[in-house]
Amino acid sequence: MAFDFTITARCPRTRARCGCFTTPHGAVQTPRFMPVGTAATVKGVTTPQLQQTGAQMVLANTFHLHLQPGESVVEDAGGLHRFMGWDGPLLTDSGGFQVFSLDAINRIDDDGVVFRSPRDGSRIDLTPERSMAIQRALGADVAMAFDQCPPYPASEAAVAEACRRTHRWLERCVASHGGGGQALFGIVQGGCFPHLREASARTVAAMDLPGIAVGGVSVGEPVEEMHRVVRQVGPLLPEQRPHYLMGVGSLREMAIAVANGFDLFDCVLPTRLGRHGTALVGGERWNLRNARFRHDHAPLDPGCGCLACCQHSRSYLHHLFRSEELLGRTLLSLHNLTTLLRFTTAMARAISEGCFAEDFAPWEPDSPAAHTW
Amino acid sequence: MAFDFTITARCPRTRARCGCFTTPHGAVQTPRFMPVGTAATVKGVTTPQLQQTGAQMVLANTFHLHLQPGESVVEDAGGLHRFMGWDGPLLTDSGGFQVFSLDAINRIDDDGVVFRSPRDGSRIDLTPERSMAIQRALGADVAMAFDQCPPYPASEAAVAEACRRTHRWLERCVASHGGGGQALFGIVQGGCFPHLREASARTVAAMDLPGIAVGGVSVGEPVEEMHRVVRQVGPLLPEQRPHYLMGVGSLREMAIAVANGFDLFDCVLPTRLGRHGTALVGGERWNLRNARFRHDHAPLDPGCGCLACCQHSRSYLHHLFRSEELLGRTLLSLHNLTTLLRFTTAMARAISEGCFAEDFAPWEPDSPAAHTW
Repeated sequence: MAFDFTITARCPRTRARCGCFTTPHGAVQTPRFMPVGTAATVKGVTTPQLQQTGAQMVLANTFHLHLQPGESVVEDAGGLHRFMGWDGPLLTDSGGFQVFSLDAINRIDDDGVVFRSPRDGSRIDLTPERSMAIQRALGADVAMAFDQCPPYPASEAAVAEACRRTHRWLERCVASHGGGGQALFGIVQGGCFPHLREASARTVAAMDLPGIAVGGVSVGEPVEEMHRVVRQVGPLLPEQRPHYLMGVGSLREMAIAVANGFDLFDCVLPTRLGRHGTALVGGERWNLRNARFRHDHAPLDPGCGCLACCQHSRSYLHHLFRSEELLGRTLLSLHNLTTLLRFTTAMARAISEGCFAEDFAPWEPDSPAAHTW
Repeated sequence: MAFDFTITARCPRTRARCGCFTTPHGAVQTPRFMPVGTAATVKGVTTPQLQQTGAQMVLANTFHLHLQPGESVVEDAGGLHRFMGWDGPLLTDSGGFQVFSLDAINRIDDDGVVFRSPRDGSRIDLTPERSMAIQRALGADVAMAFDQCPPYPASEAAVAEACRRTHRWLERCVASHGGGGQALFGIVQGGCFPHLREASARTVAAMDLPGIAVGGVSVGEPVEEMHRVVRQVGPLLPEQRPHYLMGVGSLREMAIAVANGFDLFDCVLPTRLGRHGTALVGGERWNLRNARFRHDHAPLDPGCGCLACCQHSRSYLHHLFRSEELLGRTLLSLHNLTTLLRFTTAMARAISEGCFAEDFAPWEPDSPAAHTW
């Protein structure tokens, strides 16, 4: 089967597991962080550099690619892999998350969303069928279901309505999804309401798709709420499928999620922080523009194998950001991605070696484990 | 000898030659283009990527590095090679060219230049001795003499005065230059006045330095004037030293210069054009933002081995610039640098194989050779 998911090791004390998710463009060893390549490029990073970070599966955004260059260009190019020069596994989101964040929404109803293009003001209709068609043209290995992610905070009624719509849209996604070389993942919603989360998890799980995602976290809710959702929903997901926690890429949150059975993560933060001069080091965020780095000739993170850490110093990185040099943005993006990838592969190794619970869980603020990353 | 220059092949019909210039950080096979790394970084390009372009010697700007991070930081780091992570040959300019382009010059006299820092408005004195001291602290393999490059157009009297000053300053540079692991190159001035160029070439040649440069070209004069200067001055330079034509990096001009005995070139244009979406292809400049590339899935230049050409399409590069993506700037900078490096190494091969005159000279607008690059 093209999208087989095999569990290769389990933590005896938590729900953490190692897995191998096969796709037409290769396997993804889980748990693993997935870099975000919004417009068919991980910002500032070449594809050979991306490989060196340890990335296996990369995301791209359907909404952005629909606006520019348009899915027909990508399809003509032979699909997203050929277009962006990435021969490994790719995943596209549904476009829904970005659309629901727009100010320019004209209408949301059971049919779909009507909005004005932020590019040229033209009217765009996005429906489950249209999202599937665009994602099919883009041709990633994994397509995501078109869902409605309510903002935080939202009333119980609003979240219940979004869940109902998400579940109906999922049926339409399944019906219109082409299959073939592309897997469809469903998305669990439900906000911070446990009974809605439980109902959504059961509804989406019942569709028996090759993968299942949890959305509507990391949308502004308190971090304790996110932990609660992760701990509640993780155990409700179908054991034999990959579990993708959307939009989460901080170390503690990924560790908690892995302990609760999650396998895949994505987040724009490592590259966004990197472009703005912030490096993830030892679990902290360092602003490399800070004057304290001017004369600091040590490597950024002596334990990191990325280009920024192997070939350059904190002083040089400080200089690049002070000089507004492009290279600084590339180097810190590479470093931050490498750090998150190294963290998830370290969790995988710990699961295999039987020390995950000891080294990564409980991941609480006062746990000694919190200080190792 | 640390800065030996050995001529390894000669064109029987022109003054073109192949050479090997040895420095403490390795050899430079000439003729060869030198990428410009103004602020200790070739903009948007990592040092492993820079190596892949075929670059051997790289420039950095004394003026920029003095302002940020300051030569003391670079010296503390162990010098410019360590600071920027480039273990190959490096050359720093004197800072003069940038200073004389400033609006903020307070005084120029025989002692030197007084100007206000464009960074913080503070007073900076730059003299031949100070330029040598800064360049010594930066620690490049080659330091350039502090010269006065008059603007174009300038009166004969003004150019004569700048020459006189340049020659007196050269004596002071020689007297204060530390030697050791660093070579000092003198600079010929003289604008577009043949008798001043001749006098300057003879004066600078008489100093018997490890290398000699020709400045004051590509400063706004008509291109025919530049060709005339190159053809006049090339034959006046000491045969056994490397000849560096400053600020020139267009294909035709480099070919004319090589035919007249020049060996080294630098120019900010390939990276500047690249950052702005312009690719050098087949001797033309292509604006990748142009809509004609939207559906063009061919490689940018099928004859080029750079990452942009091997891994991506014109359509993808067009998309990256339309989306204002950093990666586009990096890829076109790499492509343009690779193109200029390939051109200069192709000239070297042609000289070795005895076909330089046929393939690259006469390089005139109506020569068939003009259409091969």
